[in-house]
Amino acid sequence: MYRVGIDLGGTNIKVGIVDDLNQILIQDSVPTKAERPYQEVLKDMAELVIALTEKMNIKPNELLGIGIGSPGTIDAKNGVVVYSNNFGWENVPVTKELGKYFTCPIRISNDANCATLGEVRAGAARETRNVILLTLGTGVGGGIVIDGNIFEGAHAGGAELGHTSLILGGELCTCGRKGCVESYTSATALIRDARRAAKNHPESKMNMLCKGDIANMDGRIPFEAAQNGDAIAGEVINNYISYLGEAIINFVNIFRPDVVLLSGGICNQGDKLTVPLSKYIEKGCFAGDKAYVPEVRCATLGYHAGIIGAANLV
Amino acid sequence: MYRVGIDLGGTNIKVGIVDDLNQILIQDSVPTKAERPYQEVLKDMAELVIALTEKMNIKPNELLGIGIGSPGTIDAKNGVVVYSNNFGWENVPVTKELGKYFTCPIRISNDANCATLGEVRAGAARETRNVILLTLGTGVGGGIVIDGNIFEGAHAGGAELGHTSLILGGELCTCGRKGCVESYTSATALIRDARRAAKNHPESKMNMLCKGDIANMDGRIPFEAAQNGDAIAGEVINNYISYLGEAIINFVNIFRPDVVLLSGGICNQGDKLTVPLSKYIEKGCFAGDKAYVPEVRCATLGYHAGIIGAANLV
Repeated sequence: MYRVGIDLGGTNIKVGIVDDLNQILIQDSVPTKAERPYQEVLKDMAELVIALTEKMNIKPNELLGIGIGSPGTIDAKNGVVVYSNNFGWENVPVTKELGKYFTCPIRISNDANCATLGEVRAGAARETRNVILLTLGTGVGGGIVIDGNIFEGAHAGGAELGHTSLILGGELCTCGRKGCVESYTSATALIRDARRAAKNHPESKMNMLCKGDIANMDGRIPFEAAQNGDAIAGEVINNYISYLGEAIINFVNIFRPDVVLLSGGICNQGDKLTVPLSKYIEKGCFAGDKAYVPEVRCATLGYHAGIIGAANLV
Repeated sequence: MYRVGIDLGGTNIKVGIVDDLNQILIQDSVPTKAERPYQEVLKDMAELVIALTEKMNIKPNELLGIGIGSPGTIDAKNGVVVYSNNFGWENVPVTKELGKYFTCPIRISNDANCATLGEVRAGAARETRNVILLTLGTGVGGGIVIDGNIFEGAHAGGAELGHTSLILGGELCTCGRKGCVESYTSATALIRDARRAAKNHPESKMNMLCKGDIANMDGRIPFEAAQNGDAIAGEVINNYISYLGEAIINFVNIFRPDVVLLSGGICNQGDKLTVPLSKYIEKGCFAGDKAYVPEVRCATLGYHAGIIGAANLV
């Protein structure tokens, strides 16, 4: 039997067909062009699904269902994208509209939730059932899996781990509040802090790695400079680890998961990120060593996590 | 059929027998005297349960089970108090020890969790299934009910909502971190802030209400002074509402519950607390009015919540 997993992104719609072992058998993508009426976006999505199932000779009765991961605030119960800033969508009945093309069940969830479920079913958290994932990108997405299933809140708009306070009144967050986890732990926040430090310290190697223009700063540069002994970059990284560590401690104190996962480009740092983080949270979690402190790991499936997770919604 | 609910407190062990309609039919208490060997504490507990069941002529086969709410970090799966600062207990096998006296199932959970379940089954959140509760006392306990059942984390030490950051690096918390929700929203924190304000502003009516000695400050005085037009007290209360509101926004952004409950002496303020709080969080929750924003209510069962909730563990 087969499942379809769809990663509905701002740029592309990625579709994969997944088997019972959570292997992606075939995949392809089409541009989202989200500025169009949503019916057209979802028609393209349906056509790609149909094309792939035909290519694989999958009969309708062999298709268990279709799952979609979407950015934004999702009403999973009713299959609606309540609000998505990326697409400019409000109250788009995705599963109903897509249901015009298929007879199988169709479900939708937030993309970070799907990525978390994908990593639990087939990736970095394969042997576990209780996981928190933070996607460290432009923003910070949150995914929660409890007892093997996505937890997205009782109503739409839950699991927004990036939009909980770290330092209330601090850096402005994209959500309008000041001092959210996102505003200190996103890749954007790391780059902002690295730029500030480089500007204030012309002697920092980060300036050289930026070729003299801090507009060229990326999330890799402060790690590289720190690795090469640059004290200023070292401080930026230490601060970043602290912010992220404290955010993780918050979520451990609430969920006490089996494992904490991180994803996003920053995860290319691997052990340089997860080893100090695991050490950091060991000291800070409530009840210290008297309670279970989870390991911090990097996600391993990349964007496949979203497809596999979405496929596992059904 | 009957259930026993036990509220194991630092001062007293309160025991109640609860019927199928979650009415407490009989209740009594004994002093905890927690400094004794735990076996003696639990023997007293067992004897009180036996005395009450005998008084009610309840036969062993009419007793569905016994539930216990305890402060501290609880390993519910194994029935163990992992760590309780109040009792000086570490790894006390409560359900096993109490099981020496009974044949029915015995379960244990954190006291704030039990209070939340009690309010969901029989109190302020009766018609709901997804609730966050904050107990605003000396510290801040957290209770989480998801889909009608307690969620206490995958491992012992979860649901510690009071020990998540509000203003990292801020006021020292009892857990050792700085800036936790507890260190800004507990009754202790309100009293601390009211004392500081009264000391810095001798003209504040709070000083009069304290009879000239800020050692007499309590959680009621700043509310009373603010009500009587004292601007300094008004600022203390506004700040407190903001701290509590921001903490609630964090938990709404994660759990998106049907309703948020508050308990503790501060709830005597009733609408003066919940109306401004409900208004505060309406503006601040992620996705604003595009997503569900829960009502903030005061718990209604007092300490009965703990007994009823504990009884509902079984």
